[in-house]
Amino acid sequence: MVSETCEAHLSDALAAFVVAARWEDVPPALRHETKRALLNHVGCAIGVAGDPAVRTALEVMRPFSGAPAAAVIGQGTRLDPMAASFVNAIASNLLDYDDTHLATVIHPAAPVAPPALALAEQRGLSGAAALHAILLGIEVACRVGLGVSPGHYARGWHITASAGVFGAAAACAKLLGLTAAQTAHALGIAASQSSGLVENLPTAAKNVAVGNAARNGLLAALFAEAGYEAAPTAIEGPLGWARATGDPPDRAAVLGGLGTRWEAGRNTYKPYPAGIVFHAVIEACLALREDLGGDAGKVESVTVSGDALLLARGDRVVRNERDARVSIHHAASLGLLRGRAGVRDFGMAAVADPALAAFRGKVTARLDADLPRGAARVHLRLADGSDLTRTVTTPQGSLEVPMTDAALEAKFRDNAGLGGWAARADALIEALWSLESAPTLEAWSSLLVPGPGTAAPGS
Amino acid sequence: MVSETCEAHLSDALAAFVVAARWEDVPPALRHETKRALLNHVGCAIGVAGDPAVRTALEVMRPFSGAPAAAVIGQGTRLDPMAASFVNAIASNLLDYDDTHLATVIHPAAPVAPPALALAEQRGLSGAAALHAILLGIEVACRVGLGVSPGHYARGWHITASAGVFGAAAACAKLLGLTAAQTAHALGIAASQSSGLVENLPTAAKNVAVGNAARNGLLAALFAEAGYEAAPTAIEGPLGWARATGDPPDRAAVLGGLGTRWEAGRNTYKPYPAGIVFHAVIEACLALREDLGGDAGKVESVTVSGDALLLARGDRVVRNERDARVSIHHAASLGLLRGRAGVRDFGMAAVADPALAAFRGKVTARLDADLPRGAARVHLRLADGSDLTRTVTTPQGSLEVPMTDAALEAKFRDNAGLGGWAARADALIEALWSLESAPTLEAWSSLLVPGPGTAAPGS
Repeated sequence: MVSETCEAHLSDALAAFVVAARWEDVPPALRHETKRALLNHVGCAIGVAGDPAVRTALEVMRPFSGAPAAAVIGQGTRLDPMAASFVNAIASNLLDYDDTHLATVIHPAAPVAPPALALAEQRGLSGAAALHAILLGIEVACRVGLGVSPGHYARGWHITASAGVFGAAAACAKLLGLTAAQTAHALGIAASQSSGLVENLPTAAKNVAVGNAARNGLLAALFAEAGYEAAPTAIEGPLGWARATGDPPDRAAVLGGLGTRWEAGRNTYKPYPAGIVFHAVIEACLALREDLGGDAGKVESVTVSGDALLLARGDRVVRNERDARVSIHHAASLGLLRGRAGVRDFGMAAVADPALAAFRGKVTARLDADLPRGAARVHLRLADGSDLTRTVTTPQGSLEVPMTDAALEAKFRDNAGLGGWAARADALIEALWSLESAPTLEAWSSLLVPGPGTAAPGS
Repeated sequence: MVSETCEAHLSDALAAFVVAARWEDVPPALRHETKRALLNHVGCAIGVAGDPAVRTALEVMRPFSGAPAAAVIGQGTRLDPMAASFVNAIASNLLDYDDTHLATVIHPAAPVAPPALALAEQRGLSGAAALHAILLGIEVACRVGLGVSPGHYARGWHITASAGVFGAAAACAKLLGLTAAQTAHALGIAASQSSGLVENLPTAAKNVAVGNAARNGLLAALFAEAGYEAAPTAIEGPLGWARATGDPPDRAAVLGGLGTRWEAGRNTYKPYPAGIVFHAVIEACLALREDLGGDAGKVESVTVSGDALLLARGDRVVRNERDARVSIHHAASLGLLRGRAGVRDFGMAAVADPALAAFRGKVTARLDADLPRGAARVHLRLADGSDLTRTVTTPQGSLEVPMTDAALEAKFRDNAGLGGWAARADALIEALWSLESAPTLEAWSSLLVPGPGTAAPGS
C-alpha cells in the first residue's frame, strides 16, 4: 500500500482524497478553523469594497458575465460564478490582509473560497458543502504549494495564484460531485492554467492573476465535468507543472498524511495589514506605549532589532501605502505614537502625517541574528536618559498565538466599517458562524445583495 | 539611440512598436500574408465545427457569456468577445492543422485572431483594423516566443498558449487604441496570465490553455484600458516571466529589427493535418505513387529515411487519430495507398482500415543524419525486385515552398465540407480576401451567424 501510494500520480492521489472526504469526519477544530478562514476572507473583501482596484475589476468583468447567480462581496450585486469569483478573490487579497499559510506564504482563501461560495450559491448547495469544499481546496492548494516550496516562489511564481488554482479546482470538483477520475482531470487542467508572477506583485497585475486562479479553478472543474481530460502526470511529469515552473515536486510534502496532517490547520490571520514580519515590531511598540502611559513624547530614539528576514524588508522612505505596509519605521511609529495599526494607519493620510513622518526619523533598525524568525526587540532611549525594552517572539496572529475568535470578529467589524457595511457586520458575522447549518447560501447571499427597495450598504 | 533601445524594457519597446504601427505602412506582401493566415485560421476552425471538444467548449462557456457580440466560427451563434475568443482559439488549433511559426513552433493565429475579430466585431471596427491587429499580435507572440526559444518549450511550456497571450494582448491593445504606456501594461498583465503545459498536449487540457491565451489576452488589454498597471520588467525582470518559466530572454530576438524583420512573414500553413516533420514523407510517397501509375500493390517494402527529429516521432502502432498524425508509417501508407492525406485520412475509420493497417506493416524508418531537417527519402522495393526512390527536402507548406493561395482556398473548402459549411465556403473565402476594405465585420459575421429564418450550416 505504501509503495502504491508513493507511485500514485499526484493528481490521482489528491483527487482520491477529495472525493472520499466527508464533512462529518472532519475534526471539529478544523471545521471551526474553516469558518474562521471564511470570516477573515469575507471581512478583508468587504473592507476594500470602495477601493478603485476592486471597482475596476467589477466594471471590467460585468459585460462578460452570464446570468447573475453569485454575490459580489461588498458590491451589493451579483455576477455569474466565474466573474464573481474573479472579483471576490481580488478583493480579499488586495491588501495581503487575508489569511496566510506560513510554510508556503500562500493566501489560500482568496483563490479557493470565492468559486466555492459562488458555485454553492448558484446550485443551491448547503453551507456545510461550501465549507467542506473550502477546507479541501485550501488543503490542496497548500499541499501543492508545499511540494514546490520554497523554490517555486523564489523563482518568481506568485504562489497564491499559481498554486491557488489547484485549490479552486479541488473545491469546485467536490461541490460538483465529480468522480475521482474527473477530479484528477480538473487538477490537471488547473495545472495548464497556473500563472502569476512575483515581479508583478507591486502592481495591479497581481490582482488579475489572483482573480484568474479563482475563476480558472472553477473552469477546470466545469470542463472536467463535461468530459475534458488532462495528462495523469500534469503536475509531476517531465514536461509538467512542477518542472516547468522550477523543480520536481516533493511527493511527501504533497501526499504525506493526507487526512491526518492538515495544512489547512496551519492557516493564520493577520491582526495588522502589514507584512507578517512586522507584527512583532508593532506589538512590542504597543506594549512599550503602555509602559510609557500612552505618552510617546518622551521617546528620543527607537532601535528595532530582528533577524535578517525582518531587516531585509522596509526602508525609512515611506511614499505611499505600499511602502508603509513594508516599513519597520512606520510600523514602530504607529505602535508608539498612535497605539494602533489598522488599515487607515497605513493609508495615504497616515503616510503624509507630519507627526508620524517625524517619528519615523527616530527609528533605527539593527540585525540581531540571535532572534528567532518573526521576533523583534524594540529598545527605547527616553529624554531622561532611561531605557525601555520589549521583546516579542510570538505576536498575535502567529501559529503559536492565533487570533482569537473575538479578535477575528473585531477585525471583521473594522473592515465592515471601512467598506461602509458596518450596519450589516453583526448579521454577516452571525451568518458565517452558523453557515454550517444553512440549507443553502440564500440567506447569506441576501445579506450581501439586498432585495429591491433596500439600499445596499457601501454603494 | 541604439544603446537606449538596448536598455528599454521589453514591454515598453514592443508597446511603442505596436502603437506606432500603421496599416498603410505595412508592405503589401505582409498584408496579404495576414489574410492568408486568417483564411487558414478560419478554415481550420470551421473544419472541426462538429468535434465534441469544440461543442463542449461552447456549452461550458455559454452560461458564462455576457451579451452575444462576437461570432463563434462554425457554430452559427455568438457569445461575448471573451467566450467567443476562447472557443474559436480552441477550434482553430484543435488538430494542430493551423499555422506554424517554425522557429518557435507557435501556432500564432489561434490565440491572436479570435480576440481581434471578436473585439472588432463588437466595437464596429474595420476589417483593416482587425487585420492589422492580427498582424501585430502574431508579430509580438512570435517575437516574445523567439526570445525564450528553444528552452521555454523544452522545459514544458506550450508556447502557442504561453507566448500567444502576449500576442492576443497586443492585438487587442491596438484595436482599443491604448497608449504606449497602457499597451506595455497590457503586455505585463499578459505575463501574469501566461500558462499551458507540454505535458498536457495529448489531452483536451491543451485546448483550455490555448483558449485562455486568447481570452486572457483580451482581458489584459481591457484591464490596461481601465487603468491596471504591471511591472515594467514583467517580461525580463529577475522574478518576471522569462526567468520564472526558464531563462533570461534574448533581447535581440525580441526587439531586433522591429518593423523591418517580420516574424509574421515566416508563418507557414500545413497542407496535411499531420506533424510538420511528416510532410516530406507524404509528398515523397505521393510522387512515388505517380511513378507507380497509382498502383501501390506492387510495393513489397518501404524504407523512410530522415533526420533524428523525424525518427524521434511516430511508431508503427497506430491506435487512434492522435497516433496517426504522428506516425511515419501511417503517413507513408496514405501517400502510397490512398494518394492523399486529408483530415479524414487521419480519422478513426482510416486508423481501422485493414488495407492501411497491412500497408503500415511494410514500412520501416531509418536514420539518415545527412538529410537536412524536414527532409525525407522514401525507398520502395517492388515485387519485381526493382527499386524506386524519391527525396523531398522542401515540401509544400515549408518556408521555401509556401502553400499557394489556391492551395489555401482548396484547404478551406475541404475544411468547410468537413464542418458542414460547404455551401458558404466561397462566400466566406471572398469575404476574407476582401476584409481589408470592409468598413465593419458585420457582413463577415452575418455569413457565420445567419439571421432569423435562415438555417445555420453545420448546426
